[in-house]
Amino acid sequence: MWPSFARSALRKYTGLASQTLVRAMSSSSGPTSPYTTLSISRPAEAITHVELHRPEKRNAMNKAFWSEMVHCFNEITVDPECRVVVFSAAGKIFTAGIDLMDMAGDILQPEGDDTARISWNLRKTVTSYQETFSVIEKCPKPVVVAVHGACVGGGIDLITACDIRLCTQDAWFQVKEVDIGLAADVGTLQRLPKVIGSRSLVNELALTARKMYADEAKSSGLVSRVFANKEDMMAGALEMAGEIADRSPVAVQGTKINLIYARDHSVADGLNYVATWNMSMLQTQDVMKSVQAAMEKKSPKAVTFSKL
Amino acid sequence: MWPSFARSALRKYTGLASQTLVRAMSSSSGPTSPYTTLSISRPAEAITHVELHRPEKRNAMNKAFWSEMVHCFNEITVDPECRVVVFSAAGKIFTAGIDLMDMAGDILQPEGDDTARISWNLRKTVTSYQETFSVIEKCPKPVVVAVHGACVGGGIDLITACDIRLCTQDAWFQVKEVDIGLAADVGTLQRLPKVIGSRSLVNELALTARKMYADEAKSSGLVSRVFANKEDMMAGALEMAGEIADRSPVAVQGTKINLIYARDHSVADGLNYVATWNMSMLQTQDVMKSVQAAMEKKSPKAVTFSKL
Amino acid sequence: MWPSFARSALRKYTGLASQTLVRAMSSSSGPTSPYTTLSISRPAEAITHVELHRPEKRNAMNKAFWSEMVHCFNEITVDPECRVVVFSAAGKIFTAGIDLMDMAGDILQPEGDDTARISWNLRKTVTSYQETFSVIEKCPKPVVVAVHGACVGGGIDLITACDIRLCTQDAWFQVKEVDIGLAADVGTLQRLPKVIGSRSLVNELALTARKMYADEAKSSGLVSRVFANKEDMMAGALEMAGEIADRSPVAVQGTKINLIYARDHSVADGLNYVATWNMSMLQTQDVMKSVQAAMEKKSPKAVTFSKL
Amino acid sequence: MWPSFARSALRKYTGLASQTLVRAMSSSSGPTSPYTTLSISRPAEAITHVELHRPEKRNAMNKAFWSEMVHCFNEITVDPECRVVVFSAAGKIFTAGIDLMDMAGDILQPEGDDTARISWNLRKTVTSYQETFSVIEKCPKPVVVAVHGACVGGGIDLITACDIRLCTQDAWFQVKEVDIGLAADVGTLQRLPKVIGSRSLVNELALTARKMYADEAKSSGLVSRVFANKEDMMAGALEMAGEIADRSPVAVQGTKINLIYARDHSVADGLNYVATWNMSMLQTQDVMKSVQAAMEKKSPKAVTFSKL
Amino acid sequence: MWPSFARSALRKYTGLASQTLVRAMSSSSGPTSPYTTLSISRPAEAITHVELHRPEKRNAMNKAFWSEMVHCFNEITVDPECRVVVFSAAGKIFTAGIDLMDMAGDILQPEGDDTARISWNLRKTVTSYQETFSVIEKCPKPVVVAVHGACVGGGIDLITACDIRLCTQDAWFQVKEVDIGLAADVGTLQRLPKVIGSRSLVNELALTARKMYADEAKSSGLVSRVFANKEDMMAGALEMAGEIADRSPVAVQGTKINLIYARDHSVADGLNYVATWNMSMLQTQDVMKSVQAAMEKKSPKAVTFSKL
Amino acid sequence: MWPSFARSALRKYTGLASQTLVRAMSSSSGPTSPYTTLSISRPAEAITHVELHRPEKRNAMNKAFWSEMVHCFNEITVDPECRVVVFSAAGKIFTAGIDLMDMAGDILQPEGDDTARISWNLRKTVTSYQETFSVIEKCPKPVVVAVHGACVGGGIDLITACDIRLCTQDAWFQVKEVDIGLAADVGTLQRLPKVIGSRSLVNELALTARKMYADEAKSSGLVSRVFANKEDMMAGALEMAGEIADRSPVAVQGTKINLIYARDHSVADGLNYVATWNMSMLQTQDVMKSVQAAMEKKSPKAVTFSKL
Repeated sequence: MWPSFARSALRKYTGLASQTLVRAMSSSSGPTSPYTTLSISRPAEAITHVELHRPEKRNAMNKAFWSEMVHCFNEITVDPECRVVVFSAAGKIFTAGIDLMDMAGDILQPEGDDTARISWNLRKTVTSYQETFSVIEKCPKPVVVAVHGACVGGGIDLITACDIRLCTQDAWFQVKEVDIGLAADVGTLQRLPKVIGSRSLVNELALTARKMYADEAKSSGLVSRVFANKEDMMAGALEMAGEIADRSPVAVQGTKINLIYARDHSVADGLNYVATWNMSMLQTQDVMKSVQAAMEKKSPKAVTFSKL
Repeated sequence: MWPSFARSALRKYTGLASQTLVRAMSSSSGPTSPYTTLSISRPAEAITHVELHRPEKRNAMNKAFWSEMVHCFNEITVDPECRVVVFSAAGKIFTAGIDLMDMAGDILQPEGDDTARISWNLRKTVTSYQETFSVIEKCPKPVVVAVHGACVGGGIDLITACDIRLCTQDAWFQVKEVDIGLAADVGTLQRLPKVIGSRSLVNELALTARKMYADEAKSSGLVSRVFANKEDMMAGALEMAGEIADRSPVAVQGTKINLIYARDHSVADGLNYVATWNMSMLQTQDVMKSVQAAMEKKSPKAVTFSKL
Repeated sequence: MWPSFARSALRKYTGLASQTLVRAMSSSSGPTSPYTTLSISRPAEAITHVELHRPEKRNAMNKAFWSEMVHCFNEITVDPECRVVVFSAAGKIFTAGIDLMDMAGDILQPEGDDTARISWNLRKTVTSYQETFSVIEKCPKPVVVAVHGACVGGGIDLITACDIRLCTQDAWFQVKEVDIGLAADVGTLQRLPKVIGSRSLVNELALTARKMYADEAKSSGLVSRVFANKEDMMAGALEMAGEIADRSPVAVQGTKINLIYARDHSVADGLNYVATWNMSMLQTQDVMKSVQAAMEKKSPKAVTFSKL
Repeated sequence: MWPSFARSALRKYTGLASQTLVRAMSSSSGPTSPYTTLSISRPAEAITHVELHRPEKRNAMNKAFWSEMVHCFNEITVDPECRVVVFSAAGKIFTAGIDLMDMAGDILQPEGDDTARISWNLRKTVTSYQETFSVIEKCPKPVVVAVHGACVGGGIDLITACDIRLCTQDAWFQVKEVDIGLAADVGTLQRLPKVIGSRSLVNELALTARKMYADEAKSSGLVSRVFANKEDMMAGALEMAGEIADRSPVAVQGTKINLIYARDHSVADGLNYVATWNMSMLQTQDVMKSVQAAMEKKSPKAVTFSKL
Repeated sequence: MWPSFARSALRKYTGLASQTLVRAMSSSSGPTSPYTTLSISRPAEAITHVELHRPEKRNAMNKAFWSEMVHCFNEITVDPECRVVVFSAAGKIFTAGIDLMDMAGDILQPEGDDTARISWNLRKTVTSYQETFSVIEKCPKPVVVAVHGACVGGGIDLITACDIRLCTQDAWFQVKEVDIGLAADVGTLQRLPKVIGSRSLVNELALTARKMYADEAKSSGLVSRVFANKEDMMAGALEMAGEIADRSPVAVQGTKINLIYARDHSVADGLNYVATWNMSMLQTQDVMKSVQAAMEKKSPKAVTFSKL
Repeated sequence: MWPSFARSALRKYTGLASQTLVRAMSSSSGPTSPYTTLSISRPAEAITHVELHRPEKRNAMNKAFWSEMVHCFNEITVDPECRVVVFSAAGKIFTAGIDLMDMAGDILQPEGDDTARISWNLRKTVTSYQETFSVIEKCPKPVVVAVHGACVGGGIDLITACDIRLCTQDAWFQVKEVDIGLAADVGTLQRLPKVIGSRSLVNELALTARKMYADEAKSSGLVSRVFANKEDMMAGALEMAGEIADRSPVAVQGTKINLIYARDHSVADGLNYVATWNMSMLQTQDVMKSVQAAMEKKSPKAVTFSKL
């Protein structure tokens, strides 16, 4: 499925090439077919870059986007060449959120013969939109999201479903839904409180729709790093992705799956699950290879792991 | 139920009137009948101010308080004029916690023919005290709590059941229960760990009863803002409450209900619930009104929403 | 079970004696029989000090350690003389994590006639290793852990099962498991996200195995205090332990049990449980004694509580 | 609250008086003030008889009924004279279910300015109707329900919230809601599958609204006993209630509370809860009295237990 | 998607036509394109008949079957013409279970470079097979399954995911998995204990793989009705499906969704969910139509409901 | 640990030898050292027979029993020679329940300086008694329990923790706890409602302490088979155990573990768990061996499986 330019055999990611890579990542000329809102590339071995690419519309989430995301992450899930994903956006801002113009029909003029049937259809719509971001969690490959400029409404739903959040100094975040008369329903209210530590802050953001800037995003734990500008951030994101891609995919993807499992279960249940998980996963050759590398004082980068 | 002075038709809250309003809020002459520990007013349209008012006793929580809270918040829940609550306290400190003198009988000399029956009665007492703060959560209208000076013991139970926490620079917080020989049982141990991010800190506070001051309360996420003094804080609380009151009550109250639901359920359950919730709530006219206002670059303040 | 030098009757802990005590704690000459990896002492009344003591091996966790921990904490659980535990490590660092040399057989060459039987045996091993740290949580007495230097791999599993975390300025923390090809399976992935507030940070640490230093450990809430050096930290740990030991053991241990219960249940379930818990526990004489002391403006230190 | 004729000191229930009592129970002349749909009496010591009493309307559940039930069971909960409840109905059938004529306004013409607000009001209505039957479960005193003739719609919601179900040979049961275009929402769909063992049968009953007769109700476990006629059934209900009333109320009510807790939790959680429950309840004198009676080969009837 | 012969406008199902219909259902000449293992027809208005159709292979479940089921039930879910499904099997028996010849590759020779990767692939396979039956539950339309002859292994997984189970007098059931060396993993162990009431029986069946015949299936509640022969059973299934199809689809499908929700949640959670569900669904015109019909003593059959 | 007479190499169980074996099982001369209340033998290959053996005291559960059970089942769990357990009792009845004479101290005169400390100690006692029966569930090997005569009080706790229940025609069952003034707290209230299908019956049994005889035990699903007398029952139990012992231990024990997991989790959680479980367990050679045997029309008995 990957466009040929992305499939081209890339050497292992190196620091030297980073700036060039980052520039290449930012200069993509448009969406990658069959997508109309996403641009897909492979900036380095085992790393997939997904770029939200509707800059002329401030990356507003239109109908196409909601289904393309599902298709894209389902592809990534089964792509053995991909071990980690970097998600970012083209243009001046990360995203203005839902594209009200394009989506108005579904939400503002739902079909149905009576209130119950209209409701039934709305529920189907909301449930299918939720899937757009839940696929990120169901994909066992870690997703590093890099945010610049505004990240509004649906953007918060998106990034809270990612695993690691980075941003630029000029980024700001806004849970916008109360401003358009609704309770956020595709993930923000469910995931944000489990993503950052201060419930008072979560409530304030969700109830007042005020903007939160990069510094508060960092101190509150929404993002784990802030970069001076987008170029630095993309380099940082690539480097972090490289660190993950270099490690055993059995270890990395098992870690993601168990972290998400633990979030939604008691500690006792989580321990039971990981013991059952690891009864087979510990038998991977990756452990032996990794231990040997560690004893020889080699970095995980020096080890070649089988695909998963 | 609202005293006439509070019922007086108030114009929409404006920045200009703020200082006056705040002073008015602080000068209330005493509890509002039928309450003996609470003073109720309406400082601005759609905003209810509940003031803990037993300043001569350092706002210690006596028997009357425990039941008046239930009555008060049940009234607020069904009051269509109220969209948001500001909770603060009169006098020098927020609260000294439980009024041991007044409560001693219930707790220290419980009735019952044998240990089991004494225990049975104690459980009824504790359960009914828990309700005093749980009503805050069951009320779908957001509660902004503003803390000045000391907030001790039962005060922590109270504020952790509120939605947004603010404090003054001179505020301090103390989980006091271990100092009087008991495990906190009306909400602190259940809610505090879900309110702030550091479990190590929660445990330290609950096990050592040490004081936490405003700066640590802010950095730990217990409060989302610190103000120089009470007057500034009340102005800030009113402004924040105004932001909430200006928005669609369908959106705001649905947001509170879903945030609390999400806290106690898995992400998958939370998503299912909000989809079911919104299948009707998205049909509100508020969405149409809000979207239209947004397109006309108007603020949510400019929109008139029906009562809920 | 306690060695005689530790059993010696110690007066109540006082600030004056602190430095001496701390030095005594750090100069222990070796493990306490029957243990080969743990040194047990009683630096002050009601405080048990457990020291990880394999300094020549960087306190790496060998086979003996995994079972000695279970034995040690089971003893502490039923020891009426102990009300609080301080856990620290001898030598230059806290721990290098699992001792791969010693453990290799169990993990790298598990027995079994086919894959299913090998898996069965691995699951038994992992489950029994999980118990090594779960005993810390099952013990109702609070555990203050004091970390200096490196805390790697299994060290994170250990400290996240403790109640309060302190560290020195030179401490660093590393979730190391992905580096050796596996998903952490003895507690880190289950407990770390419930211990610190930023999920983005948790994911980054677990997926990249990067080091986190003391300042970030503090700001993220992993530790609640950072000390200049180990001597200061041990004095601080002892003081904190003293604060806990001085309070009612009924209150303290009930608090720990209910905090852990609340973590794994909804708020409603947690409230129900604590009401049922306290229907008997409120009948302790400790409440009366504590209230009386409070009314006489005495510190909890001044009260003598019965053993539990 | 009990009418004087019921308060009259009754000797302990005896078999001899049974027929007379039963006849007395069935001949009650009308509802007991302040109720208009319920008749309350005390046929024997410690037994409260609640009779649904709107025979001229086939005991259809009108508006008054929905709130009177809450009031009635709240009274019973705190009435120390009552240890067990028998619930039955006056007239020719148990109940025809909801009184559509009386309730039509609430359900068919709900108020509200838009769909969301109408929905909000409907949710409040449904939630309050659910409480009508949930109070039966929240009341710690066992409720034996005796059904004769038809038990339709809301009747199923009612009886599934009771603890023990008896019926006459001519009784039949019908989950009627699909016939009036709605999913049952006040308890049947939640409780029926946890009350009887065959899920296939539950689904069939709920999806087709077919009638189930006494024999199938017995073989499926919906009722635990079938009687030839109402008189026999009432005698049997009284006798069973007498068996319960004769036993320790600490034991009986603790049993009900723990059975309901267990239904909604895992076995591990249930065991933890009952251990916490019994740490005080085992200290009742009732155990000593009961054990002594058992050793002296006396029946529990011979023991006098304190009120609870 | 429906073959034209099935799309032909059928009058409402009537008793007279039943035998003919049943015979027609049984004489289907083969699978319906694009399926190779399923034959789809519409024996009566709003009723879809899905027939497992691989009689020459004793309806063994081959690779095609596992994916065709998902496709088929996804189509049914969105087909507004279908309100209820009857599922049965062609040929001499219901199903011999998994087709070991066809599936051997996936299960007995899974691919992967090491044990962990083989395990990873096996887990993907099992998870995808689970979906084959979970789609039955996710489809909101009730599924009546009619079993004749043997129902073995995967057949139990299939029928326990259906809503109502019927069988012929000659039917027998066998949880076969232990006989081929594995724990049943596509639904039996999860659903069977929630489908029938006797845990002792469930355990016996699953641990010994003994056959259970029709009478025990009925008395244990696995099936809700037993018929003399297949023709009678199909007539009975059609009649039952007709009863369901005649009722409001809003009521019927809401009932199925809430019954399944209730199975996996506490009663309190289930009540909350159905109240939220019904706040919109009660606004259906179907309620008004149904109530009016009821008042006019008409059967639900007489009412025309809009499609859903 | 097994006594030599039981270790003697026994041929595979055959029908012919059954009566002899059964008689041998019943004539055991006394408890097996180190036990004083349990007699252990190996009547056939891979089958362990545990006999409650205190006939002169009607098998009342004394202090020794509570701890011997834990020791015994822990041994069985790790004994590779054992694949299934038959549990029965010596003498005239199964068990009279708790031995009040022997246990009175623990329960009636618990130690502790105040009510809280007495409660603390009682909770420890109850928790440790719960373990006596929970070990049966934690042991992955199926336990078939065979009941004759009376099974009272603690006996119900015991048998509900077993996997398959059989009884003689003269057996009767009694949940006795309310008769001695307490709510059953070592498993009955938690497990009985998940073991039999009729909640009405469970409540009646637990609240009235009435006896249930064999026929009702069978029709309610408490037992899955009733035998004419003890000899027949023991033969039946042995035969059933033989069926289980002949099958793959990987399949059998995985089945037990997943059935118990499913009981306490939602269907979705159960499916996730079994998929993770089977990703390794399907790689057993037992599947290949079993499939081959099945294709050759051999019985599972004909296959030799490795020990687990």
